[in-house]
Amino acid sequence: MKIGTYSIEEYLHLIKSFHGSMAPGLIIGGFMVDLAQQNLPKGEFYDALCETRVCLPDAVQILTPCTIGNGWLKIFDTGRFALTMYEKSTGEGVRVYMDTEKLKAWPQVDSWYFKRVPKREQDLEALLNEIREAATSILSLQRVFVKPEFLEKRRLGPTAVCPSCGEAYPLRDGGSCLACQGRSPYA
Amino acid sequence: MKIGTYSIEEYLHLIKSFHGSMAPGLIIGGFMVDLAQQNLPKGEFYDALCETRVCLPDAVQILTPCTIGNGWLKIFDTGRFALTMYEKSTGEGVRVYMDTEKLKAWPQVDSWYFKRVPKREQDLEALLNEIREAATSILSLQRVFVKPEFLEKRRLGPTAVCPSCGEAYPLRDGGSCLACQGRSPYA
Repeated sequence: MKIGTYSIEEYLHLIKSFHGSMAPGLIIGGFMVDLAQQNLPKGEFYDALCETRVCLPDAVQILTPCTIGNGWLKIFDTGRFALTMYEKSTGEGVRVYMDTEKLKAWPQVDSWYFKRVPKREQDLEALLNEIREAATSILSLQRVFVKPEFLEKRRLGPTAVCPSCGEAYPLRDGGSCLACQGRSPYA
Repeated sequence: MKIGTYSIEEYLHLIKSFHGSMAPGLIIGGFMVDLAQQNLPKGEFYDALCETRVCLPDAVQILTPCTIGNGWLKIFDTGRFALTMYEKSTGEGVRVYMDTEKLKAWPQVDSWYFKRVPKREQDLEALLNEIREAATSILSLQRVFVKPEFLEKRRLGPTAVCPSCGEAYPLRDGGSCLACQGRSPYA
């Protein structure tokens, strides 16, 4: 069994090193990315879109060239455990999602996914074994078209020095940077 | 010269492999993360906050345990090229930013940063050499306190099956998932 070009053991090692823990969602995420990559529409360049911030983006970043910092991975939070790989000029893509019907055949995964068991009572080893056994059989595929606004490369445009904080900012944000306009993460 | 535990050559190799290209901003980002880590406030666990989506998040993901998928890296877009590492219980942190005053001593970096030269006319080798030479001397530090809302771990809460698409979603989003409520990335 392979995930991308890696053996499952190699992939588990990468998860541990990049993500910091053997998150069940990230192992499933590996199967999701792999399934998506095997079912790409015709095209040359692919971007990725995750529908959740939890775990899944790291599977994409480990297994594909798409990262948050290079802009080829986008997160659009619908709260669903799903990801799409799409051709970046046409928007045609393949969406892979957790299929709640198929999940019923896998009691450990089902009960973990729907949080029916408190985390500390979860038998992690049994869960991880079931995830490996289930592999892609708990997933389904959909053809989708990503909306045009995700296909445009968002350019930062001209940069200016903010008259208030003295740092550089994109001029399109207005007469000062967003932080000095009140949108600051600091108290 | 070291970036984290890596030699600069090792770090450049990691950039290429993770980010896909030798982005100047990501090399500067490496010096920023390194400077932040050397100036952490007292504490035990640190999260990271990037003020831009461009390049910088990948420096954090390469050099620290913080990733988008494990939630220890957050992006709060103020449009400024800055990052903060903060103690996750107190919010006390160190912010590292590009200092536009200090930048004046480095003509290649300054003209690249303010986009005074079209990208194709940029002498990339001269720029990269100047970035390595400048290292942390174009950066400044600030003590900051991250707002309390960034310190709370955002739990997904109970999960339900969306009556419309049949996929699992966080119940707190309402009677159906956000995508079925019209917030979908697909046409």
